[in-house]
Amino acid sequence: MSIHGKNFIGNELSALGDKSNKIYDINSNEALEGDFFHANKEEVEKALKLASDAFVVYKQKSQIQRAEFLETIIEEIMNLGDELILRVMSESNLPRPRLEGERGRTIGQLKMFANLLREGSWVEASIDTAMPQRTPLPRNDLRKMLRPLGVVSIFEASNFPLAFACAGGDTASALAAGCCVIVKAHSSHSGTSELIASAIITAVKKCNMPTGTFSLLHGSGRTVGQDIVMHDVVKAVGFTGSTYAGMELFKLANTRKEPIPVFAEMGSINPCLFLPSSLKDTKKLAAIYSFSITLGVGQFCTKPGLIIALKSPELNEFKKDLALEITKVKPATMLSSSISKAYDDNKNEALKLKGISLLSSAEEDNLKSQGKATIACVDASVFVKNPDYQEEVFGPYSLIVECENKNEILEVISSLSGQLTATVMGEDNEMEEYSSHIYALENKVGRILFNGVPTGVEVCSSMQHGGPFPAATDSRFTSVGTGAIKRFVRPVCFQDCPRSLLPLELQDKNELNIMRVLNDSNTRDAV
Amino acid sequence: MSIHGKNFIGNELSALGDKSNKIYDINSNEALEGDFFHANKEEVEKALKLASDAFVVYKQKSQIQRAEFLETIIEEIMNLGDELILRVMSESNLPRPRLEGERGRTIGQLKMFANLLREGSWVEASIDTAMPQRTPLPRNDLRKMLRPLGVVSIFEASNFPLAFACAGGDTASALAAGCCVIVKAHSSHSGTSELIASAIITAVKKCNMPTGTFSLLHGSGRTVGQDIVMHDVVKAVGFTGSTYAGMELFKLANTRKEPIPVFAEMGSINPCLFLPSSLKDTKKLAAIYSFSITLGVGQFCTKPGLIIALKSPELNEFKKDLALEITKVKPATMLSSSISKAYDDNKNEALKLKGISLLSSAEEDNLKSQGKATIACVDASVFVKNPDYQEEVFGPYSLIVECENKNEILEVISSLSGQLTATVMGEDNEMEEYSSHIYALENKVGRILFNGVPTGVEVCSSMQHGGPFPAATDSRFTSVGTGAIKRFVRPVCFQDCPRSLLPLELQDKNELNIMRVLNDSNTRDAV
Repeated sequence: MSIHGKNFIGNELSALGDKSNKIYDINSNEALEGDFFHANKEEVEKALKLASDAFVVYKQKSQIQRAEFLETIIEEIMNLGDELILRVMSESNLPRPRLEGERGRTIGQLKMFANLLREGSWVEASIDTAMPQRTPLPRNDLRKMLRPLGVVSIFEASNFPLAFACAGGDTASALAAGCCVIVKAHSSHSGTSELIASAIITAVKKCNMPTGTFSLLHGSGRTVGQDIVMHDVVKAVGFTGSTYAGMELFKLANTRKEPIPVFAEMGSINPCLFLPSSLKDTKKLAAIYSFSITLGVGQFCTKPGLIIALKSPELNEFKKDLALEITKVKPATMLSSSISKAYDDNKNEALKLKGISLLSSAEEDNLKSQGKATIACVDASVFVKNPDYQEEVFGPYSLIVECENKNEILEVISSLSGQLTATVMGEDNEMEEYSSHIYALENKVGRILFNGVPTGVEVCSSMQHGGPFPAATDSRFTSVGTGAIKRFVRPVCFQDCPRSLLPLELQDKNELNIMRVLNDSNTRDAV
Repeated sequence: MSIHGKNFIGNELSALGDKSNKIYDINSNEALEGDFFHANKEEVEKALKLASDAFVVYKQKSQIQRAEFLETIIEEIMNLGDELILRVMSESNLPRPRLEGERGRTIGQLKMFANLLREGSWVEASIDTAMPQRTPLPRNDLRKMLRPLGVVSIFEASNFPLAFACAGGDTASALAAGCCVIVKAHSSHSGTSELIASAIITAVKKCNMPTGTFSLLHGSGRTVGQDIVMHDVVKAVGFTGSTYAGMELFKLANTRKEPIPVFAEMGSINPCLFLPSSLKDTKKLAAIYSFSITLGVGQFCTKPGLIIALKSPELNEFKKDLALEITKVKPATMLSSSISKAYDDNKNEALKLKGISLLSSAEEDNLKSQGKATIACVDASVFVKNPDYQEEVFGPYSLIVECENKNEILEVISSLSGQLTATVMGEDNEMEEYSSHIYALENKVGRILFNGVPTGVEVCSSMQHGGPFPAATDSRFTSVGTGAIKRFVRPVCFQDCPRSLLPLELQDKNELNIMRVLNDSNTRDAV
């Protein structure tokens, strides 16, 4: 399959714009196949009109029909075969095993939502039956369930070119919810986006979904991205990326006549609290953390970017061990030359801050665009005074904050802004001693974990990937796991609705055998 | 009990500010008892600091402890006896039966949330147990549940001085969620607020909840209200009132360094689609709708403010009948002189719009601040061209939109902005013929009802009171019914958490016997 670089406007290919861009191999600087045509205003308008029309049809598809659609997307992605993997490798510089794993994760997410739809209970069906004899006033028949929001705009992430991209968790959850999707391709892996989009469009056709159920548009965030977000048919936005870009979208969406929710999963430094008892085997701890900090060249949103611990001889030992581990990490190519440059710039800014001392750094390498692992230290008394010390450095960088006493640890925790995760390392009996520290950490995060590393985000019902601002724009939602579907639905109540118009999920006979709240009881019983 | 006019800063009374206001009887113009001291900056700061400290303790209270607290608030409100009813009557001009009913509703809401907490399943507990043997990677133990957001700022509504006010649905749901609450009293019924606040504070003390769990502050929305919303300990805002004031708060909250959700339930004109078959008994229909339009002097957010129908001799008959009914409605005193003035001004603006014709109006009355019921008509072709025709006129006013054909009805529906409710009147077989109209209406509303009137909002699990913007700022939440609690919580995931730190709801042994999702199955089983 050759890369054509065109936009997918519903089921049609289109290249009417007068701008385009190529993607270059990060090492050889040679252009990869494909010239990506930026959507012009007419194309954006057409994609959105199609999506709006498609929504009227798509939202009435049954959960089973939507599940079959997601499963067909899986098949079509697998049908892309190794061509997909080769293209992502050349666009992202990520190694084959990681990308094969990420493809598995992407497919796993689609399957998870298909399963959720086949089970069906996630719609939170609730039925309060009529009480015509009630005094002083009778009660009407009231039935409520979650219904899709409308057209959803998804922005691809750079760091997960498959799992948080064209057919990633955002798209999967929005399509599962019954929403139509407009994806804005990421300019660093647009060929990957095109291949995945072609798989989705094949599935749209095979499953008889309306054209406009899915579109893929190329172009810059500033023009095409903003035009999509400002369009009045768009009802929600999904985004994973930098705080800067996420906040631009968030603010923009709030300037609309009708403000819409923007789910931006942005930065996080993922504080790790090392209790004294965790520092018994400092070599092992250093090895585990060095691995997590540098995994994927530190380009995970859950990279442990902050280690908080009490000053002690054991901590000094740990610092020495971690310093050594870090020097041994071979620098590796980052996702793009711009990300690599940003890493160097941000790291250098961080290291220039008063009171920061460099602990260790991986050895020099001569290849371009490589992320060199780096660890620094700072005193807690300095750290708490200035939020600049909390700025995320996207890449293999981590900062150790050294505290004088337990109270200073609490001050550090209080000073933290919202985070995706926090980690507590230590023995169980010591955890209780630090319970107020742990509760304070819980207030700051979406996920709190114990005796592990924050990298590795399980895709499952109990996952929460999100957190208080600025980790995400809305802490009440997750972008990973089944809960992600809740971002793109809203409850609708049907009062005294004729049976012929009532959604299947709310009919008396519980044909789908879903869990419902029936007159305040959880049950699968029919009415 | 005399009205002291002081702020409740946690459990303490305080009147440090140098501004105050009185409340005047709408008819006699005599001042009611009480001089209400506006909170100064120091008092606002103190209340918020107390709330922030209290949250650390209050969020750890068990669901049963919170239920007992809500039940104690009920007792203390009932202990206020007739003094409460008399004060609300003089502050709101609402009749005794309505207010006794509203007190019943307020208590019913508190009881509903207490019952929800006693049942416990609303926390959406989800458990994915560890799979240490899984390949290629083991799965950690992951457990998730809804946890309180933090300190919540609640603004009282004017039109429900009990049910959407100091101990109304917003406060009840926030306290149930485990959040601490700062209420900004409404300046038109601050004596009522004080009485209710005193009941809540008595309950705080009796139940050993920390001081700061609840505070009541007097003052203007512009100063005290804005200071509260901008304070960094506040994590969410609940508001019911005008679009203008709601949007001011929404915009303000988005200028914060940490933007926070604002749940503003604002305006709605509640379109009613009269299908031809509904116009068989026009006299009966006119009587039912005249009643709903003028109920509570048209001061319900679900008042039917728009009737959409096909032109026909039957519609002309209905117009005649409704016109007659409306002239018979005795004008009644509105909530305040400012609301009455706004009603007259907005109605006159509406009637001046091109193409609007006055159909009928209630007879003149000489008493001040009375809302005179009024009905107008307009052609659909005119209506769809200008959103000004959709401006809510808060009071007993409704507009009939006359359509040439079914397609024009669809155009009218498409032109509508978001609404709390829509109503469809007609016979079942005709509903199917108009199904595309009905689905289009569903897209615009939070609740769609059939062969009834939108006034009368049942407080129950299946209620949705909210809707697409501008009916509310976030269509994914409701301000009435058990679902209201979801506004003030967020999911938190605990990974490999030591049992001693795990919330009761997530422990292996399901002591509370709540419904949980255990490895993707809905169950009350222990792990």
